[in-house]
Amino acid sequence: MSEEFSATDPAGKAAREQAVTDEVIASFAGAAAPRYREIMQSLVRHLHAFAREVRLTDAEWQQGIEFLTRAGHITDGRRQEFILLSDVLGLSMLTVGINAPASADATESTVLGPFFVPGAPEVPLGGDITGGAKGRPCHVAGTVRGTDETPVPNARIEVWEADEDGFYDVQYSGSQLAARGWLRSGADGEYRFWAVHPAPYPIPDDGPVGDLIAAAGRGAMRPAHLHFKVDAPGYRTLITHIFVAGDPYLDRDAVFGVKDSLIVGFTEQPPGPGPDGRHVDGPWAAVTFDIVLAPQQEEQQ
Amino acid sequence: MSEEFSATDPAGKAAREQAVTDEVIASFAGAAAPRYREIMQSLVRHLHAFAREVRLTDAEWQQGIEFLTRAGHITDGRRQEFILLSDVLGLSMLTVGINAPASADATESTVLGPFFVPGAPEVPLGGDITGGAKGRPCHVAGTVRGTDETPVPNARIEVWEADEDGFYDVQYSGSQLAARGWLRSGADGEYRFWAVHPAPYPIPDDGPVGDLIAAAGRGAMRPAHLHFKVDAPGYRTLITHIFVAGDPYLDRDAVFGVKDSLIVGFTEQPPGPGPDGRHVDGPWAAVTFDIVLAPQQEEQQ
Repeated sequence: MSEEFSATDPAGKAAREQAVTDEVIASFAGAAAPRYREIMQSLVRHLHAFAREVRLTDAEWQQGIEFLTRAGHITDGRRQEFILLSDVLGLSMLTVGINAPASADATESTVLGPFFVPGAPEVPLGGDITGGAKGRPCHVAGTVRGTDETPVPNARIEVWEADEDGFYDVQYSGSQLAARGWLRSGADGEYRFWAVHPAPYPIPDDGPVGDLIAAAGRGAMRPAHLHFKVDAPGYRTLITHIFVAGDPYLDRDAVFGVKDSLIVGFTEQPPGPGPDGRHVDGPWAAVTFDIVLAPQQEEQQ
Repeated sequence: MSEEFSATDPAGKAAREQAVTDEVIASFAGAAAPRYREIMQSLVRHLHAFAREVRLTDAEWQQGIEFLTRAGHITDGRRQEFILLSDVLGLSMLTVGINAPASADATESTVLGPFFVPGAPEVPLGGDITGGAKGRPCHVAGTVRGTDETPVPNARIEVWEADEDGFYDVQYSGSQLAARGWLRSGADGEYRFWAVHPAPYPIPDDGPVGDLIAAAGRGAMRPAHLHFKVDAPGYRTLITHIFVAGDPYLDRDAVFGVKDSLIVGFTEQPPGPGPDGRHVDGPWAAVTFDIVLAPQQEEQQ
């Protein structure tokens, strides 16, 4: 350290920095909504603690502004870089955990991801959500029930997935929806549909989030999975995936989404007659996944 | 609390949340650049601590994603909502404080703000930066010197300001630059230029940042000010404002930028001959602001 530096007043500088934080926290004191005040004051406290801890430089602050600007400009109706950012920083998975039912009996949740879009087509029980997506056929079946074992008929089950090349429909230039759809569970809570066998894929890494994980030496791959969003009156909405047992990326998911209870066996099947009146010319797979919903009224912890 | 809630395992849940944070922090361990690793690991730790502290809900997470998306989409070459966000959260002013020279002798810094743009015209010593901007004429003069009292000739002094209606040039639809420019200090470090008298104005509040401060019950106004950015070889770049003594918003700046040492008197002058060969038909103001630059090599604290 130079003499000039040691001649200064570190305690005074720390106090001046704390005064800025205190002033900003106080500026939210008049918020009409107590919850908004709580969130913003906590956000300011932690954001400032971060900047002070790393002694953020002006140039690093500028890089942060540029990162967010790039993320904003690459985001559109089909690309959601801010969800991707939340995902690779583990904030999405942490939020899932914070909001998980206190009960351990229900099916576990995982990230929504950036590829959910509204407007997926309805298919009948036993129908096909493929919509022209490329991939080996895969039959998915199971039941929906509550944590008290009661079957849940008429649950709304929405599913979406990447094709065999690892791309979701919205990543193609056309407007065709494919490999997504929703159906209702039957009278005994049963559900079945045809889809394509999911494939591992890299998260979109041609934007700022791709640069972020590359600079960390992290991979962009996600293990193969099929997304579920399940809604039924009286039950908590379940947002989850099923993962394919044996996938090489299960231990290095770019978005930290894997839970052991969500890894299921996809059983290879020979060509020939399949369920729901379908004859498959080539190999196909079958998977069973039973869904257990937590009651709506269960308190969050 | 319901019985179901109390029957659960809060310690287990906290441990599972911590495990997510630990996994994400570990994912940055392989970063090639130690400084990048330090910043990202600290960011993740503080961001996760925020989410856990407020028990962030899924809906609140979604609101955060939508906020950032709106901010990204309103940002363009003329509007910088992310700088505005950093400003109203006090992160900009905190970063200024973190990077302030350890010496207390230099002119204090304040926020850059979102309205700096490259390409401002050069004006001669004593010239006019107005460029057609509306407002009462204002003559600004002073000296540039180092903390050791040495005059600093040939310093590059860039200034920018809002017009009398409170708008910067880039907030108008045309491409005309106005009320911004740069000049060089003279042989004895002196500088002088004509500008317009700055006016208080609201930060752009028709976007998400405007909603953020409105929800906090905060005002959008900034006290009247003139921006300075001063560069000279061997000295630290100074980014600051001068504020107008007596302005009604000095104690409630929307971006926390006011420092007492930066409040200066703008002296009203009668119509007639002014400095630098100019005759002013109406009233005008004069202000003196001496700039003291910290040496480049001074260590940051």
